[in-house]
Amino acid sequence: MRRSTYLVRSMAEAVTPTFPLPLKSPEAPCGYAMRFGMSEPLSLDCGRKLSPYTIAYITYGGLDAERSNAILVCHALSGDQFAAGIHPVTGRRGWWETMVGPGKPIDTDRYFVICANVIGGCMGSTGPVEINPATGDAFGLDFPVVTIRDMVRAQAAFLDALEIPTLLCVTGGSMGGMQALQWVASYPERVRSAIPIATSARHTAQNIAFHEVGRQAIMADPNWHGGRYRCFGAAPSKGLAVARMVGHLTYLSEAALERKFGRALQGRETVSFGFGPDFQVENYLHHQGSTFVERFDAASYLYISRAMDYFDLAADYSGELKSAFAESRACFRLFSFTSDWLFPTSENRRIVEALRGAGNQAELFEIESDRGHDAFLLHEPELFLRVREFLDGVSTGHSG
Amino acid sequence: MRRSTYLVRSMAEAVTPTFPLPLKSPEAPCGYAMRFGMSEPLSLDCGRKLSPYTIAYITYGGLDAERSNAILVCHALSGDQFAAGIHPVTGRRGWWETMVGPGKPIDTDRYFVICANVIGGCMGSTGPVEINPATGDAFGLDFPVVTIRDMVRAQAAFLDALEIPTLLCVTGGSMGGMQALQWVASYPERVRSAIPIATSARHTAQNIAFHEVGRQAIMADPNWHGGRYRCFGAAPSKGLAVARMVGHLTYLSEAALERKFGRALQGRETVSFGFGPDFQVENYLHHQGSTFVERFDAASYLYISRAMDYFDLAADYSGELKSAFAESRACFRLFSFTSDWLFPTSENRRIVEALRGAGNQAELFEIESDRGHDAFLLHEPELFLRVREFLDGVSTGHSG
Repeated sequence: MRRSTYLVRSMAEAVTPTFPLPLKSPEAPCGYAMRFGMSEPLSLDCGRKLSPYTIAYITYGGLDAERSNAILVCHALSGDQFAAGIHPVTGRRGWWETMVGPGKPIDTDRYFVICANVIGGCMGSTGPVEINPATGDAFGLDFPVVTIRDMVRAQAAFLDALEIPTLLCVTGGSMGGMQALQWVASYPERVRSAIPIATSARHTAQNIAFHEVGRQAIMADPNWHGGRYRCFGAAPSKGLAVARMVGHLTYLSEAALERKFGRALQGRETVSFGFGPDFQVENYLHHQGSTFVERFDAASYLYISRAMDYFDLAADYSGELKSAFAESRACFRLFSFTSDWLFPTSENRRIVEALRGAGNQAELFEIESDRGHDAFLLHEPELFLRVREFLDGVSTGHSG
Repeated sequence: MRRSTYLVRSMAEAVTPTFPLPLKSPEAPCGYAMRFGMSEPLSLDCGRKLSPYTIAYITYGGLDAERSNAILVCHALSGDQFAAGIHPVTGRRGWWETMVGPGKPIDTDRYFVICANVIGGCMGSTGPVEINPATGDAFGLDFPVVTIRDMVRAQAAFLDALEIPTLLCVTGGSMGGMQALQWVASYPERVRSAIPIATSARHTAQNIAFHEVGRQAIMADPNWHGGRYRCFGAAPSKGLAVARMVGHLTYLSEAALERKFGRALQGRETVSFGFGPDFQVENYLHHQGSTFVERFDAASYLYISRAMDYFDLAADYSGELKSAFAESRACFRLFSFTSDWLFPTSENRRIVEALRGAGNQAELFEIESDRGHDAFLLHEPELFLRVREFLDGVSTGHSG
């Protein structure tokens, strides 16, 4: 079945994407959006309801006749639905271009790959950037605080609309891995396998603290206006850039920074005795900050980082992580990276132990890499090999 | 010799401290300041000259008749001259109260301890917070960018004024340790021993990057006014608080944050579904930010962090670190902490190797601690024991 045929057929409630999609090249993937909740609002963990709400998404590959080859790819904090192909806003490659595509480890010649922007996001799914139908104004901080479980709840309604009862696999790195774990906990009957990568079953104190620094930077920006910056035609870009810079630094390792930049100066022989970007690493950070603010919304950064902070899967099951996986009979392959100090191997090991304690088949591959947390987005041959091998197994029934 | 007698005698150029000293208790140490450079300006690495300039300082204990028991304590980025006793501005204990005092490891009953605010600082020594005599305005960013070597150069002039030719020891943690190393390189004939703690002979790419995040946060504050905020009766407090928060986080370890805070909530049973400080760790961070801005100046933060970034001792000696120590015949005891990821043991080991390569007696103690970089400021019994033992040895001539 071809993707386009499929989409036209099932998108009864389809709406025009609410976000701008300047297609920069023929390669640029076209995003879709679907409106939900007109009859059935989304019940959120905070007690509020969202209605209506939009899920912006993209799919790659085709769904097979048995509807059994669907893989849900979940994005991380700064990601979106455009995992592969040319991103329609930035004109750059999708965040998981290395992993998703024809012949790639998540092979779109074999699997039907779905990637949706999380609720709270800013690439078309309902989030604080959107207009609140009740007021006609941007939501800003009136948008309800959402959780990873809420994101997954919305994805489940979306998969219902796509008429996909069961996922061959759910996968993602970082916050994407949190969603994969939450899927298994919330909808065990719908998940045949999961590949959580560089993730954790709970955000640690250090993780929360770094996020809070970013949020404080955003809220300190004079253009923040209590989250109502759109009403003022402004954007807290400087604060968001600082948040991105500190976040990005936590995704890298000291070793990789040393290898890539060391103390090399940026286009000069000697230091300037000033406060411009003398060092290459400063220039690199500035670039990370300035490109991020062109594609990301500050309020979304607050909401999504908060969702991660609130994530503590065991807490929903009386503190017993393995109870979260009690109903699951999926098989799992987890990955961590030796230099990832934000989501270290120890956290991933805890998950594997809980999965096994609940009777699930689970294995952890710790990959030797000096690239820190961001390794999951980069060229890591062992990761590719092991993901491909695992999906081969689950799709042909030789595993799990 | 009593301290007060000594000070009156040698302070020919003494001036009234230029900073406010609200003595909050009889225990509060009284700071002093000395004016220099009227006849001989301070030549800076950037090529500019500073004249006049002030060194604000404090001393503890008494100098012996041979003038041979002086220990120079060098402070870190956020420190100042008030190492011990009650800080006259904050009303809290000095930053090295655990280490310096009667009967303490750096025993003021035995040693004459000197601690001076670095140039570029904001506790009375000349820095960007001061009035530029040439314009009558605050220096702001017109203040020259200073280096660790400049700081040490000013300290040497200051010790000349105190008529102290030789230091029994020079010590400090973090940037204080950088100064100790620079002392040995710049004035090898004046240093009998050194105790560099949790430091490095060069700031790494990661160190520079975290500093740059802090500087960007400060400069993004609308009250920054290009560094001329005093002219506007303003202060970039929000930006400085963010800088402090990210800095402080890098001084702690994940393990200590987990042990102290974990995911514990701040005075509530459940999360708020909002953006206030739900978690104790957030509350703690906010406290670190808000107390810091009461005692520290934003422009000084820029200057001092930049001095650390520029520090690369080997670079001044054709890239050969051991050449920096070629003239030294001091003995050295270095300390690192297992959980210090900002100034890791590996950096301290490099220093010891270079010192030994240059024929110096040097040893490194790596102390098991989960408290990260800040361990050097905390109650670390092995550190205390080994510092006391080392000073015993060098002062009685049984070492070095």
